[in-house]
Amino acid sequence: MQVINTVKDLRNWVRSTKGSGQSIGLVPTMGFLHEGHLSLVESAKSENGQVVISIFVNPAQFGPNEDYDRYPRDFERDSKLAEKAGVDVVFAPSAEEMYPRESQITMAAGALANVMCGKSRPGHFNGVLKVVTKLFHLVQPDTAYFGQKDAQQLAIIESLVRDFDFPLEIRRIDTVREQDGLAKSSRNVYLSETERAEAPKLYQALQVGVTAARDGKDPIPGMARFIESATSGTIDYIELLSYPDLTEEPNGQAILALAVQFQKARLIDNIIFNLKEN
Amino acid sequence: MQVINTVKDLRNWVRSTKGSGQSIGLVPTMGFLHEGHLSLVESAKSENGQVVISIFVNPAQFGPNEDYDRYPRDFERDSKLAEKAGVDVVFAPSAEEMYPRESQITMAAGALANVMCGKSRPGHFNGVLKVVTKLFHLVQPDTAYFGQKDAQQLAIIESLVRDFDFPLEIRRIDTVREQDGLAKSSRNVYLSETERAEAPKLYQALQVGVTAARDGKDPIPGMARFIESATSGTIDYIELLSYPDLTEEPNGQAILALAVQFQKARLIDNIIFNLKEN
Repeated sequence: MQVINTVKDLRNWVRSTKGSGQSIGLVPTMGFLHEGHLSLVESAKSENGQVVISIFVNPAQFGPNEDYDRYPRDFERDSKLAEKAGVDVVFAPSAEEMYPRESQITMAAGALANVMCGKSRPGHFNGVLKVVTKLFHLVQPDTAYFGQKDAQQLAIIESLVRDFDFPLEIRRIDTVREQDGLAKSSRNVYLSETERAEAPKLYQALQVGVTAARDGKDPIPGMARFIESATSGTIDYIELLSYPDLTEEPNGQAILALAVQFQKARLIDNIIFNLKEN
Repeated sequence: MQVINTVKDLRNWVRSTKGSGQSIGLVPTMGFLHEGHLSLVESAKSENGQVVISIFVNPAQFGPNEDYDRYPRDFERDSKLAEKAGVDVVFAPSAEEMYPRESQITMAAGALANVMCGKSRPGHFNGVLKVVTKLFHLVQPDTAYFGQKDAQQLAIIESLVRDFDFPLEIRRIDTVREQDGLAKSSRNVYLSETERAEAPKLYQALQVGVTAARDGKDPIPGMARFIESATSGTIDYIELLSYPDLTEEPNGQAILALAVQFQKARLIDNIIFNLKEN
């Protein structure tokens, strides 16, 4: 496994890999890898000659009061996990390498960022669009892999690729969960012991909510009462929207999503389902 | 020479061309080709195995009161000129092919669009960013060629490529002029006979202005008086800015640029020069 830290070295690797006719799969991450990331790597390996994982905590997608500085980082551990998973290249640039100067041109996610996490994280998805566009241009993957846990991000990246004709495909990979149902997340390490015991209630609430929605009921009040009574977290949002266009009054394919703020960790989770199938 | 009208056919051509190891040069145009475009093709041919010219009058870069509908089009003539110039592929999609659905994600040129043509053409450069990004992703050129006549567009596209790490190079090609100095432009056909006789004064004004600027004088009032007395056009702007960052109070590399509205044609021209060299 190679570790590449500079844009120049990455470009050279991409050129020679493309020249040899091998396909490239990209798994973009912010590091502190868990089984969710490794399941993306596994899918990438099954479809590509070479697999690149990027490890970059992207400052452009953190707000001024968010957890950029204390976002968990452990490159040595990540590097071992990536190697064991069969990754070919870890691209781990510094912030200066990715953003050597101030940008002039901006991208915006528009209405897709006006719901769910976009409401409480202004500018977050514009920062995601920026780094993902850069990574796509640097790595030039044939296919890029994203987890469904970040469903809004995924919907926005799918729009990005479609709206601007990026020459690559996006794969949506199922959320990986702990045995008790909690969605795997790098931020789970910040849960207290009590919060960790409460956190699986979020997925339980989603499952109950999906059943209610399929029965034609509004699932949100019941879910809110359940989360408020069964956890110490504060609900940021619970939303039922169409997917992937994230508009209100879903009809067929839908997403039921939530974000709950615990003391040091904000957790998100969702289920994507068809409202008309039971 | 091949004419390709669909995204699908273009993608197939790109895949096989890249597979054969040939480099691709792209000349993006809105058609109604003149010697300015052909000089871009000539540069592209000298540096690439295959040359693609795109012919697409991009609705996204025209304002509601601009000349999208009456922008001059003559595909048959363009096609002959392109073939004679040695173009390998003409990519000529319909508007529906390029924009099959409404976009969600937007790009914006920021401060670079607050000067020169950006002031009187709100949204114009955002539309340019959109189509150029799409063309770059569709054609995947190694090098793309743009004329200096559209200097603000060029500065914005250079920023786009740098800010988002597009895997390609941009070449700036000198403005091609008529014998009397008028910059070649598809819109010149809309000049009346009188206006056509006056139009070379714009370049003369620029030349006098450059000399004044190098002498440390403000060139703009004199240029304005000259253009107002020697032509029937209305000045949209005359600006002296740094280049390519388009900020005020230039020091080294500078651009002296103007736009003048005639009855049915708005003409632009510029000189890029170093303020410190005589």
